[in-house]
Amino acid sequence: MRILITAGGTAEKIDDVRSITNHSSGRLGQTIAEKFPKEVEIDYITTKQALQPKGDNIKIYLIESTTDLAKKMTELLEKNPYQAVIHSMAVSDFTPESSVTMETLEETISKNPTDLANALKVAADSRTEKKISSNTDHLVIILKQNPKVISIVKKIQPETILVGFKLLVDVPMIELLNVAKASLEKNQADFVLANDLTEISGENHHGYLLNKNGKVKEAKTKSEIAELIIQAVTEETK
Amino acid sequence: MRILITAGGTAEKIDDVRSITNHSSGRLGQTIAEKFPKEVEIDYITTKQALQPKGDNIKIYLIESTTDLAKKMTELLEKNPYQAVIHSMAVSDFTPESSVTMETLEETISKNPTDLANALKVAADSRTEKKISSNTDHLVIILKQNPKVISIVKKIQPETILVGFKLLVDVPMIELLNVAKASLEKNQADFVLANDLTEISGENHHGYLLNKNGKVKEAKTKSEIAELIIQAVTEETK
Repeated sequence: MRILITAGGTAEKIDDVRSITNHSSGRLGQTIAEKFPKEVEIDYITTKQALQPKGDNIKIYLIESTTDLAKKMTELLEKNPYQAVIHSMAVSDFTPESSVTMETLEETISKNPTDLANALKVAADSRTEKKISSNTDHLVIILKQNPKVISIVKKIQPETILVGFKLLVDVPMIELLNVAKASLEKNQADFVLANDLTEISGENHHGYLLNKNGKVKEAKTKSEIAELIIQAVTEETK
Repeated sequence: MRILITAGGTAEKIDDVRSITNHSSGRLGQTIAEKFPKEVEIDYITTKQALQPKGDNIKIYLIESTTDLAKKMTELLEKNPYQAVIHSMAVSDFTPESSVTMETLEETISKNPTDLANALKVAADSRTEKKISSNTDHLVIILKQNPKVISIVKKIQPETILVGFKLLVDVPMIELLNVAKASLEKNQADFVLANDLTEISGENHHGYLLNKNGKVKEAKTKSEIAELIIQAVTEETK
């Protein structure tokens, strides 16, 4: 059995000295990888900031941005057949497209462009300094939506078991489950682990594992979540 | 002798899951701290992502944001007399004030507000979700300028020797030195270490140490920079 796990959080460059970072310790991915039986071969994609699992059966691949992640996942999925893909990485939904001062924003707006995002990109590109000067009250960063990396998985390997993750912040349980279910369907995932940031603290980690038939299993810790996922993947591959 | 060193890079929260991070390994600060004679007492402010110096004479204080840094520096400067403050931390010039979709930006603009930044803040605050939905092409983050933390130093301890840092990206040497000189004067620093990101790679680190009289000393590695700074501070405190 060979599986692919992603964990940690991506970082998207704003300029040469700044990034937008998605927080994730990588501890849940680490726990999952280390709890799999040692005969399972694991390819593990993460970042240098995240905690890394240890084991002779685990091969680590380091990436930074969402673009790096998409590239590495495509490469690995095209090369190796995986029984399961556990995609726990906190992937940035957006990546910086341009950054301008508030003055440039107002100046650009005053020209009534039909495509404001594009006009701001043109304005930003015409700036010569590589690091924006701090001599302005407000800075405006325009981000564009990233392609959904998770959609790569079933395109390349329709038969693999895909476990997605959905993290929300401080929402009612019913909303969390509904959003997770929609995410499962949209991404053709077989399972989704739904969790809420306000219910995560170190090893304590409240989560719900949903399957395609709407069945839900609950876990209270990272270890329990790892066990639920490993059990689900193992049963599904029998 | 007691000194205060800051190192690493600050992170400014966008929302509960994302931050804007200033990259800095903290290795230069680490090198400086460890090269000081062991009888020098060092208070060292850094982040949990940065490399940390080791030594019985070094006390570590962890912070995240620019606001945390300002608070911790003020507290330490009010409590302890420092012979020198070496401020190598990469401090974020801006902090996120609001984030809106491109649609909200355009809608807000169409109302011709007199203060666009403030109108966007009001629009963002009226949103109920804590994590912005990713169902939008473009996201716009408005950042406001942070107060300059370095200005705290001489206000509280006018007699301390202040070493500032100026990092630019891919500029001619003469521009680098001019910008560093202006920064020294503006911040009432006694020395400024001027460096260019394109000339930093691991231990290789090209830098110029400027003093108030316009004298410049050059270094090629992190160790050499550390030695220049320690020598300058030691001579100045004699």
